[in-house]
Amino acid sequence: MSNVTPLRRTTDRQNKNVDALTTLQSLVADDMALVNTTILDRMQSPVSLIPQLAGHLIASGGKRLRPMLTLASSKLVGYEGKRHCKLAACVEFIHTATLLHDDVVDESELRRGKDTANAVWGNQASVLVGDFLFSRAFELMVEDGSLKVLKILSSASSVIAEGEVQQMMTVADLSTDEDTYMDVIGSKTAALFAAACQIAAVVAERPEREEAALASYGRNLGLAFQIIDDVLDYNANQASLGKTVGDDFQEGKITLPTILAFQRGTDIEKAFWKRTLSEGDIREGDLDHALDLLAKSNALGDATRRAQYFADKAMDSLSLFKACASRDALADIVHFCLQRGH
Amino acid sequence: MSNVTPLRRTTDRQNKNVDALTTLQSLVADDMALVNTTILDRMQSPVSLIPQLAGHLIASGGKRLRPMLTLASSKLVGYEGKRHCKLAACVEFIHTATLLHDDVVDESELRRGKDTANAVWGNQASVLVGDFLFSRAFELMVEDGSLKVLKILSSASSVIAEGEVQQMMTVADLSTDEDTYMDVIGSKTAALFAAACQIAAVVAERPEREEAALASYGRNLGLAFQIIDDVLDYNANQASLGKTVGDDFQEGKITLPTILAFQRGTDIEKAFWKRTLSEGDIREGDLDHALDLLAKSNALGDATRRAQYFADKAMDSLSLFKACASRDALADIVHFCLQRGH
Repeated sequence: MSNVTPLRRTTDRQNKNVDALTTLQSLVADDMALVNTTILDRMQSPVSLIPQLAGHLIASGGKRLRPMLTLASSKLVGYEGKRHCKLAACVEFIHTATLLHDDVVDESELRRGKDTANAVWGNQASVLVGDFLFSRAFELMVEDGSLKVLKILSSASSVIAEGEVQQMMTVADLSTDEDTYMDVIGSKTAALFAAACQIAAVVAERPEREEAALASYGRNLGLAFQIIDDVLDYNANQASLGKTVGDDFQEGKITLPTILAFQRGTDIEKAFWKRTLSEGDIREGDLDHALDLLAKSNALGDATRRAQYFADKAMDSLSLFKACASRDALADIVHFCLQRGH
Repeated sequence: MSNVTPLRRTTDRQNKNVDALTTLQSLVADDMALVNTTILDRMQSPVSLIPQLAGHLIASGGKRLRPMLTLASSKLVGYEGKRHCKLAACVEFIHTATLLHDDVVDESELRRGKDTANAVWGNQASVLVGDFLFSRAFELMVEDGSLKVLKILSSASSVIAEGEVQQMMTVADLSTDEDTYMDVIGSKTAALFAAACQIAAVVAERPEREEAALASYGRNLGLAFQIIDDVLDYNANQASLGKTVGDDFQEGKITLPTILAFQRGTDIEKAFWKRTLSEGDIREGDLDHALDLLAKSNALGDATRRAQYFADKAMDSLSLFKACASRDALADIVHFCLQRGH
């Protein structure tokens, strides 16, 4: 019987996670239908490759987490119009454009368990269709007509690009420290999460402090989300989810798990990380050895604890708002992001 | 003596072209100083690779033709503020972002006679720094605060991306006809020329018909400019300007000269174009043979005549405005764009 309790607890937790996503999806289902229509409608172009390629990525099973944050945040602040649906589509277009350009960047061969657009159509198409979606996002924002929303999302876009460049510069560089890593993920991931939530308060014309609280919620959720994403890259269980284990290792990406393991390593271990991550000399068995070192130094567990810190801050940012179904859903999604790694 | 007259005429014409550019530059020199300051100021980032790479391209001897069009158009419509300088910087940022992303696209090894940013820093950097400049352009526009300007430039950006994708799809495809070619260059080149001119009338709050006239001027100038650019790619004299002759040929790009030569070719000539442009089987001596076929079919001369048609329309668009130094400068720049091929 001693196995039953942890097993049930794990199952419960998994169910709770599935429920968190399902609950959020149900909460915003009507609005999301309009977002999806907008996305399909506005990715059209007489140049047929554009909807083909954009559709490939947009249809490939993404959770639509970022636009859902805009929709749920709008509900949280009591917004009753429809502007947030168009803006949620903008957020997804910006995210999709980033994914397309990331494909050029990291030559990843699997994303969400499917071929990347890049693998199917090539670098050039990924760059140009990304540009189209990005421009289209701005056209949608301009149609909405709020200069404040435009300011938030254009600023987020610049910051994302800065974060992507900075990440590229840290590849293979084991002198990258945790602060630099936090800068990178703050820019490349958390900026859009923050903007996605903040714009809800703007369209609802809520006071500055609610805007700030939603931005803080999004930012901290984004940081937790990205740390867990980087932990998951070394999580063998992910193979079953169609993700490749060790992509970051193969590409020499320096993420929190490897920063911690390197710092805590012996000289021999440091030499291993240098040979593999810095010099790109990766041999058979190296990934398994890397996983052993990550386990030995408790790097994955401690990275998850760091993520917990940001998750806690995200939860506290919600305390400004009255308890309601939207607040519960946004709180549960923090747990979902944190616990998908378990 | 029989050689003297044509020689002098050529020299005169060259001088006139140099003068057209110099005259335009002098006309807008004060404003351009502010544009350059804005460009340098706003391409800064704590991520040092961004100003390095952007500076490489921005400093690499471009004519700044597009922002000059915004500045001269603003003078033409009597605008006396400073908003046009920031918007001219936006136009240059959008253009520079496109060049960076083009580097990924066509793997051209020389642009303006220098190494491309791509050759120096790689595909990833070109994509991401392009994204940064593009986002920064939108931030500048948002600071300016005109939704009408934002609409014009975000729409132009989408159209440019569509044109670039469409151009990519026509590579190696000899069934590409002149109409398709005109669609491509209308999108990838003329849309930004049109927008650069049109926004001047918007900031000056001039009537709709002046806006339309400036958009038409820019659009037709852009079409003439791009046709001549494509003619120049097969002009051996360009070698002296640091440009490679036959880049388009090597890359299988289908431009107006090859469309005309292919249509007019014998079966044997058509087979030659198929082997080289479609199948990419390019052997020693093929470029020279291509140049012979272009000469034989008068494709370069006739493409230039097509450019003349758009140049004439650009000139006529200026007739709405009273004669003044700005109008003269804008008219002369049409001749400059047309005659740089001679």
